[in-house]
Amino acid sequence: MLFYYLDLIGVAVFAASGVLASRDRELDLLGVIVVATLTAIGGGTIRDLLLDRHPIFWVSDNSYLIVISASAVATVVYLRNFPPPGNAFLVADAMGLSLFAISGANLALAAEHTPLIVVIMGAMTGVAGGVLRDVITARVPLILQRELYATAAIAGIAVYLMLESIAVPHAFAFGTGSLTVVTLRLFAIRWGWHLPVLRQE
Amino acid sequence: MLFYYLDLIGVAVFAASGVLASRDRELDLLGVIVVATLTAIGGGTIRDLLLDRHPIFWVSDNSYLIVISASAVATVVYLRNFPPPGNAFLVADAMGLSLFAISGANLALAAEHTPLIVVIMGAMTGVAGGVLRDVITARVPLILQRELYATAAIAGIAVYLMLESIAVPHAFAFGTGSLTVVTLRLFAIRWGWHLPVLRQE
Amino acid sequence: MLFYYLDLIGVAVFAASGVLASRDRELDLLGVIVVATLTAIGGGTIRDLLLDRHPIFWVSDNSYLIVISASAVATVVYLRNFPPPGNAFLVADAMGLSLFAISGANLALAAEHTPLIVVIMGAMTGVAGGVLRDVITARVPLILQRELYATAAIAGIAVYLMLESIAVPHAFAFGTGSLTVVTLRLFAIRWGWHLPVLRQE
Repeated sequence: MLFYYLDLIGVAVFAASGVLASRDRELDLLGVIVVATLTAIGGGTIRDLLLDRHPIFWVSDNSYLIVISASAVATVVYLRNFPPPGNAFLVADAMGLSLFAISGANLALAAEHTPLIVVIMGAMTGVAGGVLRDVITARVPLILQRELYATAAIAGIAVYLMLESIAVPHAFAFGTGSLTVVTLRLFAIRWGWHLPVLRQE
Repeated sequence: MLFYYLDLIGVAVFAASGVLASRDRELDLLGVIVVATLTAIGGGTIRDLLLDRHPIFWVSDNSYLIVISASAVATVVYLRNFPPPGNAFLVADAMGLSLFAISGANLALAAEHTPLIVVIMGAMTGVAGGVLRDVITARVPLILQRELYATAAIAGIAVYLMLESIAVPHAFAFGTGSLTVVTLRLFAIRWGWHLPVLRQE
Repeated sequence: MLFYYLDLIGVAVFAASGVLASRDRELDLLGVIVVATLTAIGGGTIRDLLLDRHPIFWVSDNSYLIVISASAVATVVYLRNFPPPGNAFLVADAMGLSLFAISGANLALAAEHTPLIVVIMGAMTGVAGGVLRDVITARVPLILQRELYATAAIAGIAVYLMLESIAVPHAFAFGTGSLTVVTLRLFAIRWGWHLPVLRQE
């Protein structure tokens, strides 16, 4: 139940990030909603396809699409009246990344996959929607930026897995894992944190 | 049966649009056929994967791949001998968009999904092949253009759903829905119709 | 068993090609591993999804992800100490293309699909990982280059199918098919071989 509400928050913030990414692309309202929807459902859909979970989460429960449309329309209305806060796009993306990374890891864990698969599945669920959004709106994918991105997701999943293995309450493990992702990602943007990068030519 | 032939026409025109998109990309003949194939089967494949319909439509029936190859080769031969009519690419894309949008909606409807899912599934089936084509051939996706695109698909699906709900013959509902998409899309290109767009910075 | 080891070699070389493609993109170490993983598992994952083979090959067997990570880290370490051999990226890509094209064809053949499906499935398995890699790292996809690419894959699959149909040992058919792809592709790069290309405007 908790995970369900966190998933709904996840699609809402990713939908908002899709609208923010469409902002200077001259899309019409329905085009914006299509981009927001693809961003919001991309990661979870790939997760469900890879784990052969049918029906896909948003096919069997209309709440997701309703929340996505509501979030997209609210973001559009906001943007027509106010300038967006400076880092709105990056914050919305970081929140979506964190919620989907932990939710993808959680589902793979529940299906009793190995820790390696749990980490990969979580990372993929977290980054897929954002990569799709960036490719469709012709942006340089955030995952290609210098600051911690996949790393933040993987670190948070590791924290989540460690907490689950010592049998703390699920909500605490989920919360701490997600918070780790968001914090690492936003601090990395703010202070330019990054792992060693590959030597350039 | 009717839907089957309309699907074959859909893959043929999307294949032609894939060839037209490859035109100035210096692809060789087989490369062109690969791009045409991905464009033509992209939307329906994603539809079948999401609805867990196996085998995928073109895996169980070779007619699709034969029609796609024939359409691609015919388009290549035509282009080596004549200049393409001015808007050939946009017209082929509009026809593919319309046929796949209604066909995707039709399949979701037959599987008794809710209207919201039917609309989303139809829109996704219609736009996916074209987005894939534009990303692979490194073009700005048509869905990012200002003129009605996803909107045209969604409006046509709405017309189709309304007609189905009042029990007119399927062929009439399908035809009117498809025609709505093509007409809206082509008129939008011709006269620059668009919904309100998001305010630019 | 033979196919299993060839598949492992396939993911290893595609992972290396993913690292080489990330080289001048300022990705951090984990970002590089994510790109390497997507490149390495992309083609086979799409093959498994399309043929409805579950669990997906890397979900049920951790060896793949371990080999991918090891190959990616080894490539990163190498690149921090030595300049890459001139065509390392193109050679790694050609090897991955060849192994996955034949392996995709082999699986479709084992599932008793028609020759046309076998060819398409092989070609798609071979090119998908590389296209994904090029799109994510914002490069012009290799499939869009003038030299033989999809053509090399299709020619090798044809050789493989002919040899299988005359009942030579599997290993010989696989080896000759793969070698055909690599040789055609590398010779095409070296000497600029290409099929007739579509007339430019």
